[in-house]
Parts: sequence; structure tokens; C-alpha cells
Amino acid sequence: MKKYIEVYNYYKDLILTGQYKKGDKIPSVRQSTAILNVSKTTVQNAYFELQADGYIIAQPQSGYYVSGGAREMLNETEESPASRQILYDLRSGDADSESFNLALWQRYIKSALRQEERLLSYSIPKGEADLREALSTYIREKRNVIASPERIIVGAGVQPLLAILCALANDRRTVSFPTEGFKQGIHTFKTHGFEVHTRDKNAEIIYVSPSHMTAYGDVMPIKRRLELVHHSETTGALVIEDDFDSDFMYQNKPVPSLFALSGAGNVVYMGSFSNVLTPAIRISFMVLTEELTRRFNEIESCLAQTASKTEQIALCGYIRDGHISQQTRRIRRHYTAKTRAMYDAIRTAIPQAETTVSENGLVIKVEAAFSGCAEDFIAKGLSVYIYSIDNGILRAALTPSALETEQIPAAVKALKAVLEGDNT
Amino acid sequence: MKKYIEVYNYYKDLILTGQYKKGDKIPSVRQSTAILNVSKTTVQNAYFELQADGYIIAQPQSGYYVSGGAREMLNETEESPASRQILYDLRSGDADSESFNLALWQRYIKSALRQEERLLSYSIPKGEADLREALSTYIREKRNVIASPERIIVGAGVQPLLAILCALANDRRTVSFPTEGFKQGIHTFKTHGFEVHTRDKNAEIIYVSPSHMTAYGDVMPIKRRLELVHHSETTGALVIEDDFDSDFMYQNKPVPSLFALSGAGNVVYMGSFSNVLTPAIRISFMVLTEELTRRFNEIESCLAQTASKTEQIALCGYIRDGHISQQTRRIRRHYTAKTRAMYDAIRTAIPQAETTVSENGLVIKVEAAFSGCAEDFIAKGLSVYIYSIDNGILRAALTPSALETEQIPAAVKALKAVLEGDNT
Repeated sequence: MKKYIEVYNYYKDLILTGQYKKGDKIPSVRQSTAILNVSKTTVQNAYFELQADGYIIAQPQSGYYVSGGAREMLNETEESPASRQILYDLRSGDADSESFNLALWQRYIKSALRQEERLLSYSIPKGEADLREALSTYIREKRNVIASPERIIVGAGVQPLLAILCALANDRRTVSFPTEGFKQGIHTFKTHGFEVHTRDKNAEIIYVSPSHMTAYGDVMPIKRRLELVHHSETTGALVIEDDFDSDFMYQNKPVPSLFALSGAGNVVYMGSFSNVLTPAIRISFMVLTEELTRRFNEIESCLAQTASKTEQIALCGYIRDGHISQQTRRIRRHYTAKTRAMYDAIRTAIPQAETTVSENGLVIKVEAAFSGCAEDFIAKGLSVYIYSIDNGILRAALTPSALETEQIPAAVKALKAVLEGDNT
Repeated sequence: MKKYIEVYNYYKDLILTGQYKKGDKIPSVRQSTAILNVSKTTVQNAYFELQADGYIIAQPQSGYYVSGGAREMLNETEESPASRQILYDLRSGDADSESFNLALWQRYIKSALRQEERLLSYSIPKGEADLREALSTYIREKRNVIASPERIIVGAGVQPLLAILCALANDRRTVSFPTEGFKQGIHTFKTHGFEVHTRDKNAEIIYVSPSHMTAYGDVMPIKRRLELVHHSETTGALVIEDDFDSDFMYQNKPVPSLFALSGAGNVVYMGSFSNVLTPAIRISFMVLTEELTRRFNEIESCLAQTASKTEQIALCGYIRDGHISQQTRRIRRHYTAKTRAMYDAIRTAIPQAETTVSENGLVIKVEAAFSGCAEDFIAKGLSVYIYSIDNGILRAALTPSALETEQIPAAVKALKAVLEGDNT
């Protein structure tokens, strides 16, 4: 008998005999590895089978839980709410456990925590000076965004930065978003009294994310970039270029940033480190135009820095030592390989579906005949981005970045079951 | 010759002979301790004398710098801009180096960084569930604020939390602040389209900080608290109780929170950990009313959590293990002792000034005959909160929390010189 089947049977018995009850947390993969003296892969495979067979469920951020006690498991006919939990997250864009070198980041945090004197005072509104210096070099080298540290503002995510922008650009009243998808951004502008439109060229502020235009991972072509820059120069519209996910693309053909293309300086450039590092680190930044920098300086005393000073100090060292670029290459390889593996598995298992990989290499677009509804996905533990279910055709986007590589076969199997209307 | 005079002469000679030039950074206290093989206190005393004599200046967050090269020092008649730097910060409320047990906090951060799985996903909009659980217990025990974790929202400072409140309470249009001092709060409401008034009982939202009402550290008396709660219950006005600095008071007579006094549930309670821990940790929280919690839940997907997940996890453990209460007692003792020491020194050195210590024990109010202007303080390196200079009378508030204890005599000497019009 294979090792992982032994582990599988071990936990299955504990559950069926009621020693682990519904809702109980079972040991983590790491703990089991120690308890049972087997390899991590063995435990992962066993847990995967336990999940597939409905004994346990994975709760993101938390661990594995027994999805039903022995009694329920044998008798229940109705699906329990617990088993409706997300098993396969193909939507969140969270990171998987393989992607980030946490030990390295820990070193920088520890070193930051040793800078006692710096930790005794509040960070200045723009963010730590040395971090902004490092960012200035980094974005110049990477995206040809040339701006002095003076123009760079650090914040705990894009939302607080947009709130600052709303205050700085309060002579404008309308803003356009490409879709209604970026709810946090739309919310911020709305609550600051802006009129929010979708794809409205006449808006005074135009928000775009050219490296991740849609849930499909489309990239803005150079032609449209030039048009947008020209439009902004002619009309004076302020462009917000949210360059998130830019780290994951341009592997073959680097597309210039709007900021670099624009001569008139009407572009605010935004970037974030949640994708390259871990989502748990809340540091984003924006590069203001000259004019907006002047306004920022005027109201500086009204603005508090939101990002953790410790993490700012750590990130500064991390960037200076070249780890961001290294990490970017690593993750890009890792995520695109995973997306490719899932794509191949879908092509083999579900040949009737039309599938393509997005230009940024992170998202799989699926188009397939489908007579079910969105709930069918949830029932199988799949969280996917459904673009439309229309005239018997499903259009969906799958982002496997949060999925562990070992989960791919099971996720594809679940997807196949949903698409083929298998409700068992 | 005393040891510290030797250290003093050592650096003085290096500066006067031009081996350290104007603007050069000199070794930190720690480095000097190692280089010269003397105690930390010796170095601190030497640096203090070097500062007092104008050879070096302390730059908060950065270190000690030579304030003038040998030539300038001997020849210059005009005061150099560098020597106008803040030597004695009696205003910022930053922490001093003695106040915080950083090593302990480091342990919790390290432990948080080991929770790999949790660090791979975004924090939920309300903040980490276990932290909100711990906060719920903590504020119940400490301030009799009884609320389920469901109603607690975590954020990176008070400003992002107020931005959320602006969105939740957007059926109201006017807000009142006790003074114009809290610029960040006023800014947030203004940019969200609110009309901001000062001390306006008719406002639909009333912001107060009852534990720190003014720069003088006054505490709101119980009678006014009851009036305010009654007013809010009668008119439906929403009260924002920003309880910052509450940790430092109530040592003798606990004053109940507005939240606890209010039966109608019209009070939003806010708290922060920057004062008790270090300002570098950006975690605040608010307790919403039932109604605002419902609204939060509706727009939850539009809101991103701003606080660092690592720091949230660390703070949770830190609170659970009782360290906040311990640390609070420690700092309270430490800061009030320092304020008392400075108060005594002022009474002795400047008996003509009328001085009192604020109710919260952190601020010294000074009233004295004064024929100078605000710039006189800056010229002597003093940063103080000047309430008014009127009819030859100065009213000012001194908060010595950021001052190292050893600096007190020099700060008082500088203050005396300013008050007595000594411009040498």
C-alpha cells in the first residue's frame, strides 16, 4: 500500500469512529509530517484524497477541518453547509505556499526591528525617505518611470493612496473606470463625491490598470496606450496608471508604462508589492505629477502615513539588495508554469471547452457549453470568476495562483464535473 | 577628569580640527560606547554637553550631526539653519528610547512571521478575527466597552478608520470637532464632503477625545460626558469617542467611557496602540454601532484592510498574553515621572512661571510673562505647543514624552533663557 493511503486511512478511521468530530481541526500538513514521520508530499496527497472524498475541508488561512462527524457522514443526504466551502480557489489571486521566500523576508523584518531609534517616531506622511529613494531607483530601472523620491507617496494599499488622490485632485469631478470590477477604487471616489463612470473618455480622471485590464488578464496594447496618453495631453485628463501585476508580464515584449510615454506629466503611476511578496504586506506607492506633489506638500500635515514603519524599513533593504527582481522572476516562472499545467490538464480532461491562457500568463479563459448555474461551481467547492452564462454558453476566468500545484488534478476533475452537469 | 568630559573633549577636538565637518554624522551612542569602551550613560552625558554647547545636533530618527565645521564655528555670526533644528521635542508625543520593550515585541513579530499560511492571503476588511476577538475582551475589561468582535474594525491608524466612517455615515452632513487641532480628522471629513464645525452641538456627528481634550491634556469630566451622551440620545447625533491617551489616565479615578455611558448605542469608540507600543506600529480600531455594523457588512467588499497582517497577528498575541496592560502601567509610570521631573525642574529654575501638570499627567501647562515671539523657542531648539502669546503673557503646553530623561535639565535651561529674553 502506498504511504499516502496509509495516512489517508489513519485520518479516515479517526473521523469515522468519531474521534475527530465535525468542525474539528485536524493537524496541519507540517504537524502530520512530524507526528506520522512521513514526507510532506505524502501528507499533502493524503489530505488531498481526504478532501476529494469529502472527509475534510481546507479553510484558507486556517487549516483543515472535519467536514462531518461519522454519524452525519453515513446518514446525511442533504449536503452540509461545511462541504460547500471553497476547496479550489481559482479567483482570489492569493499566493500559494510555494511562492514566497518567507525566511528571507523575516531576516529583513528582524533587521528593521533592530533600528530602535527609527521605530520610536511616527513615519512621515510621504513614507520613509530611504524607501522612497529605493523605489525611485527601482521603478526607473524596471518601468522607466523617472521621478524623484519627493514625488513618491507610500501607503498601506491602493485604497488609502486613492483617498489621498481624491483630496489632491478635488478640482475634478468625474472619474472613469474600465469596468465595475475594482469596487474598492470606485467606492473611494464615490465617497469623495466624484461621479464615477465606466469607460468614459470624457471623464476628468481616467483610471486604468494596463497590465491587468480585465479578469482575463488582458494587457493594454501599445497602440491604445499611445492613444490614451495623447488623449490626456489634449484634454488635460489625469490618468491613474495602476501598474499592478506588471511584474508578471512583459517577459517577451516589454510594453512601456503610460507614465514613461506621457510627455505632459498627466499620469499618476501606482504600484504594489502584495503580488510579488505576500498579500499580508501592505505597502503600495504612487508617483504624483509635479502639480499634485505641490498640493500634497501643502496639505501634508493633514495626512498620516498608513504603512507600517517596520515593513517600510524592511522593504527598503529588500529592494536595495535586489531581492524584488529575483523574487519577481521566481514567482513569474512559478505562476506561469502552474497556469500552463492547469491549462494542459483542462485541454486533456475537457477537450470540448475552448481555453486560452491570458497574455500575462496568469489566467485561463474558458468558454464552454453549459446548462447549469453559478451555484454548481460552489457546490463542487470551486471559486471561479464567471464572466457570463448566456444562451447555454459559459464564459469564465480561472486564476490558479492560490492553488497548490498538487490540487490541480482535483480542481480540473471538479470543473469537468460541473461543466458536464454531473451533480453527484 | 570625569569620564564623560573625556568623551566630550574627544569629539569636540575632532570637530574643531575639521576631522568631522558640518553635517557629518557622528557615531551613535551605541557605537561610541563600543568605540571608546565607556558606558552608555557616559556617552549620553558627553553628547548632551556637546549639544548644549552647539557642537552637535540631534536629528530625530536619524542620529547626531555636526552642527558646524571648525571654521564656521569660530567665525560665524549668523545662526546657521542647522543649529535651528529641534533639540528638545516637547510637542510631538513621540516615544523616548526608554519606554518600549522592543525585544518583547520582536518576539511576537517573529512568531507571527512563522504563521506562513496566514501570511499568504489578504486580511479581511474588518481585520484578523483573532485580533478582533482579543480586542473585544481587552476593551470590555479596560473601558467597559461591550461589543462583539463583529462590530470591531481594525485599520492602519485613525485616519483610514474615519474614512470608512465617512462612507458609513453618509446620511449625515455636518461634523463637529472640539478644536481645529486634529487636522487629519478634519481633512478626512472635509474631503468626504462634510461640513466641519468647531464645538457645534447641532452637528450630526460629534467627534471628541475625552481622555485628551486639548493640547493641555485635559480630561472630559463625568458631568460633561453625561450631558454629551444625553444630547446624542435626544438628537440622534452620532458621537465619535476617540479614546487615545486613555491608557495614560484614570490612574486614580476611573472615568467611564462615553460608549459605556450611552444606552442608545450612538457612540463609535476608537482606540489606538501607537502611544502604548511604538508609533511605528500602525494599528487602530473602532467599535461601530449596530446600525453602522450592518452598513459595513453591506459595503465590506468595497473596503480593503490597511493594517499589516503580520502586526495584527503579533498584536493579538501580545494582548492575549497580558503585555498591553503591563506595558501601559510601565509607560504610565515612566511618562508621568518624567513629566513630574520636568515640572519640578521648571518650578525651581523658573519660579516666576505659573505651571501645572495636566490631569492625565503627561502635559505641563505654562503661563508666564513673555515679551518675545514663537521664533525665540525655535532659536533655542525648543519645539513646544504655544496656545497664545497675548498681552505679554505666554500660554504653552509642554509634553516631554519624547525627551530623554537626561535632556530635561538642558531643555529647562533653554526654556528659561527664552522666557527671560536671553538671546545669546
